[in-house]
Amino acid sequence: MVKIADVAKEANVSVATVSRVLNKKGSVKPETCERVYKAIEKLSFEPNMSARNLRRNETRVILIIAPNITNPYYAHILAGIGDEAAKLGYSALIYNTAGNEERERSSMDMLKRKRADGAILLACNTDSLWVAEYAEKYPLVHCSEYVEKLDVPRVSIDNYKAAVDVMEYIIGLGHKKIATISSCNSYISTVLRLQGYKDTLKKHSLAMKKRYIAFADAEYSFKSGKTAAFDLLKQKDRPTAIFCISDTIALGAITAAKEMGLRVPEDVTITGFDDVDYTTMFHPYITTIAQPCYELGRESFKLLHACMSNKKEIDKKVILPHKFIIRESSAPISTCN
Amino acid sequence: MVKIADVAKEANVSVATVSRVLNKKGSVKPETCERVYKAIEKLSFEPNMSARNLRRNETRVILIIAPNITNPYYAHILAGIGDEAAKLGYSALIYNTAGNEERERSSMDMLKRKRADGAILLACNTDSLWVAEYAEKYPLVHCSEYVEKLDVPRVSIDNYKAAVDVMEYIIGLGHKKIATISSCNSYISTVLRLQGYKDTLKKHSLAMKKRYIAFADAEYSFKSGKTAAFDLLKQKDRPTAIFCISDTIALGAITAAKEMGLRVPEDVTITGFDDVDYTTMFHPYITTIAQPCYELGRESFKLLHACMSNKKEIDKKVILPHKFIIRESSAPISTCN
Repeated sequence: MVKIADVAKEANVSVATVSRVLNKKGSVKPETCERVYKAIEKLSFEPNMSARNLRRNETRVILIIAPNITNPYYAHILAGIGDEAAKLGYSALIYNTAGNEERERSSMDMLKRKRADGAILLACNTDSLWVAEYAEKYPLVHCSEYVEKLDVPRVSIDNYKAAVDVMEYIIGLGHKKIATISSCNSYISTVLRLQGYKDTLKKHSLAMKKRYIAFADAEYSFKSGKTAAFDLLKQKDRPTAIFCISDTIALGAITAAKEMGLRVPEDVTITGFDDVDYTTMFHPYITTIAQPCYELGRESFKLLHACMSNKKEIDKKVILPHKFIIRESSAPISTCN
Repeated sequence: MVKIADVAKEANVSVATVSRVLNKKGSVKPETCERVYKAIEKLSFEPNMSARNLRRNETRVILIIAPNITNPYYAHILAGIGDEAAKLGYSALIYNTAGNEERERSSMDMLKRKRADGAILLACNTDSLWVAEYAEKYPLVHCSEYVEKLDVPRVSIDNYKAAVDVMEYIIGLGHKKIATISSCNSYISTVLRLQGYKDTLKKHSLAMKKRYIAFADAEYSFKSGKTAAFDLLKQKDRPTAIFCISDTIALGAITAAKEMGLRVPEDVTITGFDDVDYTTMFHPYITTIAQPCYELGRESFKLLHACMSNKKEIDKKVILPHKFIIRESSAPISTCN
């Protein structure tokens, strides 16, 4: 039978270190941790009962709670979480809540019933205060969206700053009649992007017009983006630029503009957000904000792992840098507008 | 404290029935089962230790093993599984393997370690014989893709027949130079669709030309579909119709044709497969095979539940009907071709 000492020898570490890894107590460098898990795997080591008891609260499973996993925005985030989790010997399971609050809670109950060691929440409304109850007892991390009032660890970009970047660029192109297509969900990213839109208009003394603010549905669907753009562009005094808070919405908006006989970007500038794959599938390629999705995923798992390991010094608000990418769907205001 | 008798009263069934539901022994109608679970939930009933021991092998968690969950094809399948599972009090967790065989096996190990009661496999290569080892011991169901040599329960459409339907239609439009864009993966659906293509050509005494068979990548990516279509259409004696085995590939093919100055469908007919949302996002809307994805998901869970409940008479090969939808991307061969 393989013993803990064999694992230690194989991994070239002390028995105490293997024990620390198994029990997730004390600190072990990630590289060392990985080496230990590789040795465990190589030797098919099964901890004996006493070791197993020590770690009886550990499942080596983490949950990813998502409302709609087929949103292309999640693709690289899920890959980032999955890769980082696998590296440390964890299985990352996705719980698709379909935005159903009952399922959200039932996913949390899995933590209660010790079916998982921790969870990453991919989407939360700004008013999801119920998260607090679980965050007190179990390792939880927010990725992308979070509840601002709560002190739950989180990883995201600076959504406000990103929106300001786009707006400064559009205004710099000479546009004055600038609309936005927001979403009717209540994610923090939605709130902050709208705030960035409003504040930048104000900063440049441009009037904020209610009729220039449209809303797509909660899932940022193509169809709702198209409808919203149609409502904006059919106005007599139509906007010359539309800041969309997602690429899918932007794609819908571009389609609406085309169907109305408007050229993008000659007649109307349209920008997106996220930089999902299809921003460069059809012309005009979409000017957008690129989120470092894979890194958002990796960092979320790292943060969760730190929480699960009871590390004390945790940076609870990780902000990753975004990138603004100028492509074909935006242009200086033309004289004909 | 809530007792089993209270649950029985609330659900209007006998204590024995509640016990059967809790222990998953014997047969209980789904409606009754649901009523019992509702009563359990309503009364916040926690089974006592002896009941818990009886069902100690039960987690009420099932796994969905998927290689790439952001493929839009999976959206409704996952919804179907999730809804049906929730109805019977199960949590359906998705294990994203990213096509990595090590992760596939590690997901199966969760069954071994009693972290889940059963699993639905969303994609399997035709040669994934390792599945047999697990299928012998644990409840497993294949959805969409399966290993033909194995006797594992499965739910799918008739991929061969669907391909024949498309090909008969294209030939009926007068096309003789018909190409296909297959995929370099080795899913059973890929194999059967290519076979349907070849057999229908043969049936109509049309020559099968190797240069008319192109391959997109394993994930049916837009880009690889575009490249494959470009290779087909740049030939001097180019095909007048292309049967694509996925909608994403068809979208790539339409884009390639357009960039080459060819009109779809006037110069080239292009058909897809699956009927995902974006078949009707851009003109021409795509002629395609619609799979009953939500139903495929529901039926997969039902079949898995039957296996988990040790039901004896199980229909191990569930075939659901597909639908052929004619839209704008296909047309009779024009005289100019």
